[in-house]
Amino acid sequence: MASYTIGLDYGTNSVRGLLVELGGGLEIASSVFEYPSGAAGIILDPRDPHVARQNPQDYIDGALSVIQGVFAKSGVAPSQVIGIGVDTTGSTPMPVDAAGTPLALLPEFKGNIDAMAVLWKDHTGYADALEITALAAKIRPQYLKKCGGVYSAEWFWAKILHNLRAHPEVFDKAYTWVEHADWLPALMCGAAHPSTLRRGICAAGHKGLFHASWGGYPDVEFLSQLDPKLARVRETLPNEAFHIGDPAGALSQEWAKLTGLTAGIPVSIGAFDAHLGAVGSGITPGALVKIIGTSTCDLMVAPLDKPLPDIPGLCGIVPESILPGYFGLEAGQSAVGDIFNWYVNSIKPAQMTHEQLTAEAERLAPGESGLLALDWHNGNRTVLVDQRLTGGVIGLTLHTTPGELYRAWIEATAFGARVIMERLEESGQTIGRIINCGGIAAKNPMVMQIYADVMGRPIAISASNQTCALGAAIAGAVCAGAFPSFSAATSKLAHLQERVFTPIAENQARYERLYALYKRIHDAFGVSGETGDLYDVMKQLLALREEVRHV
Amino acid sequence: MASYTIGLDYGTNSVRGLLVELGGGLEIASSVFEYPSGAAGIILDPRDPHVARQNPQDYIDGALSVIQGVFAKSGVAPSQVIGIGVDTTGSTPMPVDAAGTPLALLPEFKGNIDAMAVLWKDHTGYADALEITALAAKIRPQYLKKCGGVYSAEWFWAKILHNLRAHPEVFDKAYTWVEHADWLPALMCGAAHPSTLRRGICAAGHKGLFHASWGGYPDVEFLSQLDPKLARVRETLPNEAFHIGDPAGALSQEWAKLTGLTAGIPVSIGAFDAHLGAVGSGITPGALVKIIGTSTCDLMVAPLDKPLPDIPGLCGIVPESILPGYFGLEAGQSAVGDIFNWYVNSIKPAQMTHEQLTAEAERLAPGESGLLALDWHNGNRTVLVDQRLTGGVIGLTLHTTPGELYRAWIEATAFGARVIMERLEESGQTIGRIINCGGIAAKNPMVMQIYADVMGRPIAISASNQTCALGAAIAGAVCAGAFPSFSAATSKLAHLQERVFTPIAENQARYERLYALYKRIHDAFGVSGETGDLYDVMKQLLALREEVRHV
Repeated sequence: MASYTIGLDYGTNSVRGLLVELGGGLEIASSVFEYPSGAAGIILDPRDPHVARQNPQDYIDGALSVIQGVFAKSGVAPSQVIGIGVDTTGSTPMPVDAAGTPLALLPEFKGNIDAMAVLWKDHTGYADALEITALAAKIRPQYLKKCGGVYSAEWFWAKILHNLRAHPEVFDKAYTWVEHADWLPALMCGAAHPSTLRRGICAAGHKGLFHASWGGYPDVEFLSQLDPKLARVRETLPNEAFHIGDPAGALSQEWAKLTGLTAGIPVSIGAFDAHLGAVGSGITPGALVKIIGTSTCDLMVAPLDKPLPDIPGLCGIVPESILPGYFGLEAGQSAVGDIFNWYVNSIKPAQMTHEQLTAEAERLAPGESGLLALDWHNGNRTVLVDQRLTGGVIGLTLHTTPGELYRAWIEATAFGARVIMERLEESGQTIGRIINCGGIAAKNPMVMQIYADVMGRPIAISASNQTCALGAAIAGAVCAGAFPSFSAATSKLAHLQERVFTPIAENQARYERLYALYKRIHDAFGVSGETGDLYDVMKQLLALREEVRHV
Repeated sequence: MASYTIGLDYGTNSVRGLLVELGGGLEIASSVFEYPSGAAGIILDPRDPHVARQNPQDYIDGALSVIQGVFAKSGVAPSQVIGIGVDTTGSTPMPVDAAGTPLALLPEFKGNIDAMAVLWKDHTGYADALEITALAAKIRPQYLKKCGGVYSAEWFWAKILHNLRAHPEVFDKAYTWVEHADWLPALMCGAAHPSTLRRGICAAGHKGLFHASWGGYPDVEFLSQLDPKLARVRETLPNEAFHIGDPAGALSQEWAKLTGLTAGIPVSIGAFDAHLGAVGSGITPGALVKIIGTSTCDLMVAPLDKPLPDIPGLCGIVPESILPGYFGLEAGQSAVGDIFNWYVNSIKPAQMTHEQLTAEAERLAPGESGLLALDWHNGNRTVLVDQRLTGGVIGLTLHTTPGELYRAWIEATAFGARVIMERLEESGQTIGRIINCGGIAAKNPMVMQIYADVMGRPIAISASNQTCALGAAIAGAVCAGAFPSFSAATSKLAHLQERVFTPIAENQARYERLYALYKRIHDAFGVSGETGDLYDVMKQLLALREEVRHV
């Protein structure tokens, strides 16, 4: 009889469920649940654009909806499912009480946005992040070395410290803080109580300053100097963290009843969506996997047995954060699809759709518009690790069109991607191929060609339309013992599209020149102490534009 | 019996006629003619955004249409008109044959855009302008001192030199080149033949390198070094130029027949629209008059008897270019209304109108959007004199709205206006008051308040909706002897609105900070050799934004 696993993939706006048949390696059915709370699942504060929260109730409702959804669509019997995997956004921590219940689900905090899950892109903790960086630089430099040199406002401790300072009425009621990725699997296993909850190395290692060399999470002395109350949170945290080959627990009777699944099947340790996307893309050493969605994650793995240098600006190098047996390297861009969506949905140029703008942008050659943009609408995650940067564009004329700007935003994100690739290479990684996945990779060939041209590498595309959910299903399958290893599982279940985007020499040469200009404004605006004589930048843009247009 | 004059005001997209009754100082009727050629009167080249041409036939058809129009509307008899004044855009030169007929009107050149009038904002001659600047710096430094240090692509000789180089088939057929401002009055007086055509000091002095100290236009040796063929053009030019108190001639029998006007009435020497706008605004020493339209002109007058220093970056200081008896000082911004129109008509954010965007922008406080823009969509006329600069904006986030961007463009133009004001003051001019005129000044109080807040000066608004045409009508009246002087004429005919926009202290303080940041990116992008460490610019913008929003 065929056996199946389910991957649950919690994104920024929705959760997807994917049912995978293990024998044939086929994706059988998927189901999507749009979070009902807030604006497309994100609870905003009109007074403060830094705020981005989520309602944990959406997570529960979403899991039930998509699990039921895949069975309804496929006709597969729930009893044939042997394991579950989960990925989520992150760092998306939430305050929970002593029983492990999110404060946001208690009547007392109903509707209180400061008790909700603090979504990855919430930047309210930027001042707190600066403080953490400053203190670590002074007394715990080793902490910074493992997270790229700067602690980000998007991460665990910055968000907790901000809550402590800004919302003591919430903070004081929290027993501890749990990442969405850790909480959801634990909930399904009836193991959300802080004494039983197992935390994943992915979230802990990349965002929580967890490292075996200093005994897990940051020490009490360090946290106390930030604020004595923070030490109390530390005391609730374990000194051990687990990779995705480990189970978070076994499905509880309660969730078995709610879903029709078999009680006791393993739910794997949760990890971030991008990390399981890398698994679903069949990541191997030498491949750079880019998960391109609202934001982007760039992931590599490297064998554990060769020590790695610390890489400045990288979000982290964490043993087994992606695959057991390998270091996981994570970098990323704070906004990619979000920039395109902002342009289409908020600026609404001529009310054009993505498709219409793509058609306009496709008619342009690199350099033709004279535009050069900075992809920092949501700050810069790698390599500057600075949420206090903003987007921009130069080269505007009275003839600039909506399609030209659309292409400029796309190119800016490609330049940002190349900065990350170069930083990885400077630090000794060899990048033989790039695998892109995510909605934009699947849907927009123009974007992929621009990326190939800008990055100068062939770009393969994950065949799955839900690579992250597939990675989660793979983790569920490995935890259930269906495969002896992740490489055995991915060679069966992870596929690439036939079409590979290869760089076009002429485009590549032009982007080489545009990239040099991008780097100059990137450094002028983004690097402290840089002396930026930007005088010739616009002139070079115009000269190139005319060259392209043969004026 | 009441007597009248007519002012003809040739703008970028249309010509207006204004009938003024001299005894009561009233504007009796006006009429508009939209140029039928090209896109809103501008003939473009889709391959080259630098191209902007006009069809001289539109000028002729327009004059006839609006003259007939004011009589049809008012019922006034044409015989009661005692004089005519004319203003046009500029530098807008056109090639003419030995009879003074524009080549564009000859069957041989029908539809040839390179034989048409080269509109002020045509930037095809930018390389030629650089060459003129370079040669003058070497052998005629005095030329540059009188035009702000840099010869612009928007000016007379750059346009002719470009035509000579790029379109010899046109250039070789041209006997000479005539400014629109000189040609139209001459045409009406039957004096367009090069031997009788009188040229105005406004165009010649500000754009044609004409100065009495070196005997009028540039010398043959200088022009020959640019190209020997250019010397041939010089030989067709007179050594004398006239101010607007002088007549270009007397209305010809032919034009009297065409219009019903009385043959022999004076047509005043033509001048640029902005200069006659300053006259129509009642310009006096100590007042800065800003004509705010598609682009902006900033004008001052200073008594001829006190020598003036040369002012770097100013478009020119020319004796009697605005009013007889005074130096005329001209500065300007290459695009102002054009930027707002580009945004509304080309980018079409959410298909909002100017009025809707103004309503959104009005809700914002200075600094609230976190945006900072550069107003260089059409290059920078003053103080950088560099058409090879482009517009830009920084501070973009995923929350940036159409209304925020609209306000940012407005603020950028206000910052640009302040740079000009400060340069004038640094050079010894005292600016006691600012008078704005033009469509935007009349129609958009928000823009005027932003200008007052950014510039820190009270701003008065010309009462006329067609101040340039009024200035032209005033010139016609002075030429006809209806007033003994321009000051007598303007005190009767030029009025200000009662409402004066005074700076709001809180806004002024915030704009002070934004302006300091504007100056930094202005200098970083616009001044050669500037070392621009721009690291803290965006951070300061965000800090200010939060301060304003009380986050």
